[in-house]
Amino acid sequence: MRELLKVFKIGGGIIDDSAQLGQFVIELSKIAGKKILVHGGGKGASDMLQILGIEPRMINGRRITDAATLDIVTMFYAGKTNKQIVALLQQQQVNALGLSGADGNVIRATKRPVREVDYGFAGDLNDQSVDANLLHQLLQQDLTPVFCAITHDGQGQLLNTNADTIASSVAKALASQYEVELHFCFEKNGVLADVQDDQSVIPQITPTQYQELKANGVIAAGMLPKMENAFAALEAGVERVVIEHAMKINEPIKTVLCRS
Amino acid sequence: MRELLKVFKIGGGIIDDSAQLGQFVIELSKIAGKKILVHGGGKGASDMLQILGIEPRMINGRRITDAATLDIVTMFYAGKTNKQIVALLQQQQVNALGLSGADGNVIRATKRPVREVDYGFAGDLNDQSVDANLLHQLLQQDLTPVFCAITHDGQGQLLNTNADTIASSVAKALASQYEVELHFCFEKNGVLADVQDDQSVIPQITPTQYQELKANGVIAAGMLPKMENAFAALEAGVERVVIEHAMKINEPIKTVLCRS
Repeated sequence: MRELLKVFKIGGGIIDDSAQLGQFVIELSKIAGKKILVHGGGKGASDMLQILGIEPRMINGRRITDAATLDIVTMFYAGKTNKQIVALLQQQQVNALGLSGADGNVIRATKRPVREVDYGFAGDLNDQSVDANLLHQLLQQDLTPVFCAITHDGQGQLLNTNADTIASSVAKALASQYEVELHFCFEKNGVLADVQDDQSVIPQITPTQYQELKANGVIAAGMLPKMENAFAALEAGVERVVIEHAMKINEPIKTVLCRS
Repeated sequence: MRELLKVFKIGGGIIDDSAQLGQFVIELSKIAGKKILVHGGGKGASDMLQILGIEPRMINGRRITDAATLDIVTMFYAGKTNKQIVALLQQQQVNALGLSGADGNVIRATKRPVREVDYGFAGDLNDQSVDANLLHQLLQQDLTPVFCAITHDGQGQLLNTNADTIASSVAKALASQYEVELHFCFEKNGVLADVQDDQSVIPQITPTQYQELKANGVIAAGMLPKMENAFAALEAGVERVVIEHAMKINEPIKTVLCRS
């Protein structure tokens, strides 16, 4: 039987709120067994870019990462946020180890090709990007890897990478060695049947039910990329995807996506 | 026979010069066998502090690390500089893994006690600070640890720590498992008999010779802390301390300090 591994992803909202981040870290420390954390960015980098007079450029909700922006996001994500989370986890006796994709060559990305839009130093992942063996070794040493959303191309170039993509790529890469649960933590209780009602959490969704919910327009547009990402992870061998409130990971309220 | 391990320390001067840093990384990649790199800060953090209107405060040549300064130095040292060096080493096929002391709890420091001066969030190390077992495991996985000069106290607090101190503490901690060579790399060819003449490198210095050189005033005041640090490392089991030019680590010109 494969050992259980839980991969948690948290977004910028929690990182911007130190009380929430502290609470999340305490809740995460109560989760027994092997775990990995992937964290997004937060507003700090955007604020710093503004102070420095570097205008944040977004196209279709995605940041354009020029060289100056890459410098700043690397400082925030890999420096401030990552080390702060690692230190807080250590305080809770979780032996966290902060990683960018460059560290140990653990996630090698490719710079996004320029088509209609030049996203700059943005990294895309493929099925070969994650070094599952190194992660397995670190997990066997009872370390808890903590990923920021910075990767590299193996040619000396750091790359800004979507944190949801990192979480699902890490989960998929470890699915043959572990029974992997992928947890997307955000500011809602789960996938809601009624976006106005935070108690209307749908407890379980299979691929068939997802198609129905999508056809009926129940699942809001903003949730669709996360859901597609989640079902792709299930197809690739991840056991369960859990969508839950970051402050309630140890409470029963959540949505579980499963293969059938 | 213990395996050879080389611990290299580079300072801010190289980090501020991307051409020099790139060349150092290439030279380091030619060094066969187990190695660890410790890097100092560089001017970037001070420049950023100035842009943000945070006045750098120094007492007796040491930075006072208030909370805002700690944030910025963590971003630069653990974020920008550390990940940049790791990515450059990966480009040269060196499987580098960036670390702060918080990562894997590998260096636990204590906040410097407030006596005449309050240094703020400055971390001091002792004989128990470095987790030699974790470093040994990483080295056995053919990883090259790359340390920035940020540690933690185990209670959730990051601490700014002297990079020379980190290098010698890491070297001392591994001296029972490895034959450790500690390399202090800087912008001179070694310890000079005549500070005006960069060719006047003293090839070897024993503790007895050091006392004579110090008594005769041959060794310049600025070198004394580095020398004291070096001989303390030798006393604690480090095999050799090498003082050399960061651009010439593969050339024979250097000063070797040894126990006798």
